[in-house]
Amino acid sequence: MPYQPISASIAEQFKNIVGGENVVTDHDQLEKYAHDETEDLKYYPEVVVKPETPEQISELMKLCNEHVIPVTPRGGGTGLSGAALPVKGGLLISMERFNKIITIDERNLQATVEPGVITEEFINAVKEKGLLYPVDPSSKGSCFIGGNMAHGSGGPRVVKYGTIREYVLNLQVVLPSGDIIWTGANTLKYASGYNLTQLMIGSEGTLGIITKIVVKLISRPSHDLLMLASFSTNEEACAAVSAIFRAGITPSALEFMERRGVEWVIEYDHIRFDLKDGAEAFLLVEVDGTNPDTLFMEAEVINQVLEDNGCSDVLLADSSAQKEELWRMRRTMAVSVKSNSVYKEEDTVVPRAELPALIHGIKEIGKIYGFESVCYGHAGDGNLHVNIIKGSMSDEDWQSKLKDGIREIFELTVSLGGTLSGEHGIGLVQREYMPLKYSEVHFNLMRGIKHAFDPKGILNPGKMIPDFIN
Amino acid sequence: MPYQPISASIAEQFKNIVGGENVVTDHDQLEKYAHDETEDLKYYPEVVVKPETPEQISELMKLCNEHVIPVTPRGGGTGLSGAALPVKGGLLISMERFNKIITIDERNLQATVEPGVITEEFINAVKEKGLLYPVDPSSKGSCFIGGNMAHGSGGPRVVKYGTIREYVLNLQVVLPSGDIIWTGANTLKYASGYNLTQLMIGSEGTLGIITKIVVKLISRPSHDLLMLASFSTNEEACAAVSAIFRAGITPSALEFMERRGVEWVIEYDHIRFDLKDGAEAFLLVEVDGTNPDTLFMEAEVINQVLEDNGCSDVLLADSSAQKEELWRMRRTMAVSVKSNSVYKEEDTVVPRAELPALIHGIKEIGKIYGFESVCYGHAGDGNLHVNIIKGSMSDEDWQSKLKDGIREIFELTVSLGGTLSGEHGIGLVQREYMPLKYSEVHFNLMRGIKHAFDPKGILNPGKMIPDFIN
Repeated sequence: MPYQPISASIAEQFKNIVGGENVVTDHDQLEKYAHDETEDLKYYPEVVVKPETPEQISELMKLCNEHVIPVTPRGGGTGLSGAALPVKGGLLISMERFNKIITIDERNLQATVEPGVITEEFINAVKEKGLLYPVDPSSKGSCFIGGNMAHGSGGPRVVKYGTIREYVLNLQVVLPSGDIIWTGANTLKYASGYNLTQLMIGSEGTLGIITKIVVKLISRPSHDLLMLASFSTNEEACAAVSAIFRAGITPSALEFMERRGVEWVIEYDHIRFDLKDGAEAFLLVEVDGTNPDTLFMEAEVINQVLEDNGCSDVLLADSSAQKEELWRMRRTMAVSVKSNSVYKEEDTVVPRAELPALIHGIKEIGKIYGFESVCYGHAGDGNLHVNIIKGSMSDEDWQSKLKDGIREIFELTVSLGGTLSGEHGIGLVQREYMPLKYSEVHFNLMRGIKHAFDPKGILNPGKMIPDFIN
Repeated sequence: MPYQPISASIAEQFKNIVGGENVVTDHDQLEKYAHDETEDLKYYPEVVVKPETPEQISELMKLCNEHVIPVTPRGGGTGLSGAALPVKGGLLISMERFNKIITIDERNLQATVEPGVITEEFINAVKEKGLLYPVDPSSKGSCFIGGNMAHGSGGPRVVKYGTIREYVLNLQVVLPSGDIIWTGANTLKYASGYNLTQLMIGSEGTLGIITKIVVKLISRPSHDLLMLASFSTNEEACAAVSAIFRAGITPSALEFMERRGVEWVIEYDHIRFDLKDGAEAFLLVEVDGTNPDTLFMEAEVINQVLEDNGCSDVLLADSSAQKEELWRMRRTMAVSVKSNSVYKEEDTVVPRAELPALIHGIKEIGKIYGFESVCYGHAGDGNLHVNIIKGSMSDEDWQSKLKDGIREIFELTVSLGGTLSGEHGIGLVQREYMPLKYSEVHFNLMRGIKHAFDPKGILNPGKMIPDFIN
C-alpha cells in the first residue's frame, strides 16, 4: 500500500495524543525540521509532533502504522547523512522533549537517560560524579544521545575507550506496531538471544524509536597529556598513526588534520597558533591515565615514533588553556570548512595502517576530477572525514563530476578493507554507494530485518537500504 | 515442510563435496558429536561432515536447504547450553578442519583466523608477536574461536578489555541459502547499515555458519599483580566488587569463588593452598598495565577497599608460579565441581552492585527447594555461574523440583535488572526460561530475523527462540 498523506482528522488525533501545543503544521515553523547538517538538503514533513512519553509515541505509531503514514524520528538535527530528513513527507517525531537524565547509578556505574538529552550535558553530568562517558562527537554541544545511538556515532576517544556499542547496555524502543520493548538487560555481558540492542545501534531510526537508554560509565582518568605533531606530508603523518600503536601505546585520542583545515579554523575561530611553513599535516595525540609518570613515559615513546616517521615539530600543551585551544581547533574544523566553501563530506574508514594509501589516493582522484579536499578525522581508528570542496569548480562540473569522484573514493576505501562510513551513517546521501561494498544478498538480509520490525515500511523510509519500499 | 531424513543418495553427495574420509556415519564415531559439556544430554546427528572450505559448506547448505535437512554447526564442543547438539538429527557440520590462523597483521593490529582455531592457540600466537587477544574463556584450551563468536563468550578479562563484541571486526558467513557474505568491514568503526557482524555474535549458529573471522588485537600489558582476598560471607565479598570500581579502579580480572568450590578444586587438582577456617568466599583481583608503580598504587587502593568491606586476609601473589596456581584454581573450578556431583549450571548476570542480593537470594531459594549450590564467576561483570549440585537430593526431587528452583533463580536475576545468560548462551537448555525475561513481541522480532536468514528453519533448529519451527 502506498504511503498516505496526513488527513485533517489524523492531525487532530495527533493533537489529542501529544497536546495541541506540541503539534507543528505551520510551514515556517516546519522549516527547522526540514534539514539537518547535511549540505543543503531540504525535505518538509507534513506535521511535526513533540511527544514526551513512550506511551505517546506508541499511540502515534499505531495510528501511522494503521494509515501507512511515513514516520521520521529526529534527534538534535546534527546528522551528516540526511538520516533525519522526512524524504517521504509524513510525520516527523522530534525527540526534543525526551530531555531528562533519569538516573546516574553510582553503585553500578550505569546511567539511564532519555534520548533527547544533549550529549555534552550528559557527559558533564557524569563528570560531576567523577565518572566518564567517553563518546563525544564533535557536535556534542547540540547532538542528542539518542541520535548518537541511532547512528553509531563516535568521536576522538573511541580509539582507547571503545565505540558507542561498548557503552550501551539496554534500550527502550517503540516499534512501528506501537509495542514498547526493552532490547536487552542492564548488564555488561549478554548472551540471551539475538542482540537487539546492538542491532538498534546504527540502524538510523529505521527499526524503532529509542525512548530510554541505559549506558555503562567508567572511572575518569585523572591526568592527560596532549601533543600536536607537525609533518611535511600527509602520508608521513598518516604512517605515524599505526606506528604509535605498534610501539605499544594506545592513545586516548589520535586525530589527523590537514594544513588547509588548520588555516581555515585559525581564520574562522581566531585560534592563536603559530602555523609554520612546511607544516602540511598534523597529528593531535592525547594519552590519559591515573599516573602522570606513566603518561610522560608514553609521551617519550610517542615522541620517538613521531621523530622516526619524519615529524618536524612536536608541541606539548603546557596548560589546560592550550589543551582546550588545540581541541577547539580540531572540533571547529567541520564548521570552518563549511563556512569557506560549498562542500561534500564523506566519512571513510579503513584499517589504520592503510591511511597513507587512502589519503594519497584521495588526492590523486581529486586531480583527475578537478576537486580539492580537506581531510581530517579520527586517524587512530582509520576514520578519515573527507571534505570535498567546490572551490573554483564550475557549478556544472560540481554537479556532473562529483558523484563519479566520490564513487572512486569509496571504491578505494573498500579496496583497502574499509567501508563507506565509520560514524556518520548511510542515511539518504550515502545510500546510492552501498552497492560498492555490499551485495544484493546482504541487502536482502537487511530488508528481511527491516520487514521483521516494520512490515509496512513506515519508519524512516528512503534511508540506508537501497530500494527498500513499502 | 517438515524436516527430511538424510537419504543414502544425499549422504553420497556429502561425500562428493567433502571427500568420503570426511563423512562420519558410524554410530560409535558419531557419539563424540552427540554431546557437548552441557550435563549429560545426548542427541545423535544422522551424519557428520568435516568440510575444509567455505565453498564446501556452501554446497552442503544448498543441498540441505533444498531438501529441508536440519544442519547443526559445531565448534570445540565445549558449550554449556547445548547449542551444538543436533536435536532434530540431520547433518552436523564439524568446523574442526577450519584450524588455520590465516594472518596476524601487525601493521593494523588485526588477525584473520578460521573458526576452528583453538582459542588458546590463537592467544599464544598473538602473544608471540607481543600482542593481546583478551577473550579467554575457561575452556580456552579446547574451545574454538568460532564457537566463542557464536556464543558471545567471555572470560575473566572482559571486565577491563571489553566483550568479544569489541574485538570482532568482520565475519565471513555461509548462509542457509549457500550464499557466502562478509558481514562488515575490517575497520574499528562501522556505521554502514545494520550491523550484521554484531547480529552474528551470540546467534548460536542459528543464522549462518562463520567461516572466517577478523579480530582486533591490542598491545600487551607488560606487568600485572594478582591478589586473592578472603571474606567470611559471600555477601561481603560480592559487595566489595562494586566498591572496587567505585574507588576508580578497573581491574583486569575480578573473579568470585565460594569456599566449597575452592575445597573441591584443591582436592581435584591438588592445588597447594592454605584454606583458612572462616574464609567462606574469595575474590581474585588482577590489575595490569605498563608501569609497575601504577599497579602497586592501584593494589593499595584495592587493599583499602577490601579491608573496608570486611576482607579478612589478602594474599598478593609473589611469583609467576603462584599467579598460575591461583588462576588454575579458578579455571579448574568448573570441572572439579562436575567431578564431585551431578549438577546443573546456570549463567546468571546482573548489574554488578546487585551481586550480594543475587547470591543471597540463590541460597534462600536453595533452602526452599532443598538444593545446595556452588557459585563462582566473573564478578566484575556481575556474571555469576551458579552450579546447583544434586548432592544428597533424591533422584525424584532432582527431577521434580529443580526446574522450579531454576525458574525462581532466573526470576530473581531478571528482577535485579539482569538476564538469563552472560556468556554461555541460551541454546537448548535455557530456552524454556526465555519467557521469564522476554515477551512474545520480542520473540517475534527474533523469529523475523531468523526468517530473513533462514526461511526454511534448517540451521540449528530447536535452539534459543521458543517455539520457532520450520
